[in-house]
Amino acid sequence: MFISVEGLDGSGKTTQYQYLVEFLRQRGYSLTCVREPGGTPIGDQIRDVLHSLKNAAMHPHTELLLYVASRAQLVAEVIKPRLAAGDIVLSDRYADSTLAYQGYGRGLDLERLHQIVDFATEGLKPDLTIYLDIDPAQGLARRQAGADKGEEWNRLDALALDFHQRVYRGYQALIAAEPQRWLVVDALGSVEEVQQRLYQALIPYLP
Amino acid sequence: MFISVEGLDGSGKTTQYQYLVEFLRQRGYSLTCVREPGGTPIGDQIRDVLHSLKNAAMHPHTELLLYVASRAQLVAEVIKPRLAAGDIVLSDRYADSTLAYQGYGRGLDLERLHQIVDFATEGLKPDLTIYLDIDPAQGLARRQAGADKGEEWNRLDALALDFHQRVYRGYQALIAAEPQRWLVVDALGSVEEVQQRLYQALIPYLP
Repeated sequence: MFISVEGLDGSGKTTQYQYLVEFLRQRGYSLTCVREPGGTPIGDQIRDVLHSLKNAAMHPHTELLLYVASRAQLVAEVIKPRLAAGDIVLSDRYADSTLAYQGYGRGLDLERLHQIVDFATEGLKPDLTIYLDIDPAQGLARRQAGADKGEEWNRLDALALDFHQRVYRGYQALIAAEPQRWLVVDALGSVEEVQQRLYQALIPYLP
Repeated sequence: MFISVEGLDGSGKTTQYQYLVEFLRQRGYSLTCVREPGGTPIGDQIRDVLHSLKNAAMHPHTELLLYVASRAQLVAEVIKPRLAAGDIVLSDRYADSTLAYQGYGRGLDLERLHQIVDFATEGLKPDLTIYLDIDPAQGLARRQAGADKGEEWNRLDALALDFHQRVYRGYQALIAAEPQRWLVVDALGSVEEVQQRLYQALIPYLP
């Protein structure tokens, strides 16, 4: 079973992802955890290029191609072999991030993005995608509060609110197009509240 | 005018490229020189990932996407603005390398490669492509001789002769498909002989 976790920056995705890993391990599932971009030695080098503050002049096409390059390596080196071995593969972001951020957020041609993503993933899609649902203004405010406390503040965070609003509408469109694949979880509330909400919603889907 | 220079490893391409730059500058042309992969700060970081010996596990799809990511940045940041400013842009490798190395050499789907290359370059093609023509066995022997004298020996050089033979046949097919764009120069002989041959062939095309 292949599960991806998606959400805007500030949705609490990374925190919830970590709790979800513990939750599934405690229930005895054999689990492989991957993150996007990155998740392999080569992908981590690509992630560094994507996130470096000195690379502010990156063209949107370059950015897209780097994200999918990282993903091609992850699919071939980790995701496909671990699924074949019977693991649950849990991915922190996957192809929907490309469509939401680069397609809807940056305005790149969606049909061309689908072709390039299919090339990179060889057509592999998640069985289930968990979406941590937060309003973009609230997500950005959370990230800024985190940065004030010394958390990582990267190049993408520096983009304006209207970009995050376009990404938000992109996720809404992706969910509407394939509702059976998505598990939408309200990300407002304390970490513990969201965590409980996520577990209760997820349990019926687990093998 | 946009000119690219192509050739197998060991064709003497890099040396001839440098002489060509001097030749054109001495004749008073305003020249912008770029190389593939690389040619921008972001592209140089991508080049490092592509050429690192520790990245031997790179999947062919990842490799392709990194090459075209570097190219997307180069086209947007350098090639298009300099052409618009009236320069001759002289590129050490361009899109034909992707088709020859990843398409014919690695066996990736050529139609899909054309789509991805078009996305990265926004359809920009060279006006003229100089091809330094050498037999792949002779090219590889030259590179190995160079490595014995301490020259750079990278991940791609470590691939077997049959790979370079497929790349060679790829270039032959690309030239046959668009003969008016290509200037084929015999790369056998001394550096000076090839240099003179190249200049004589090129002069009629210059503005």
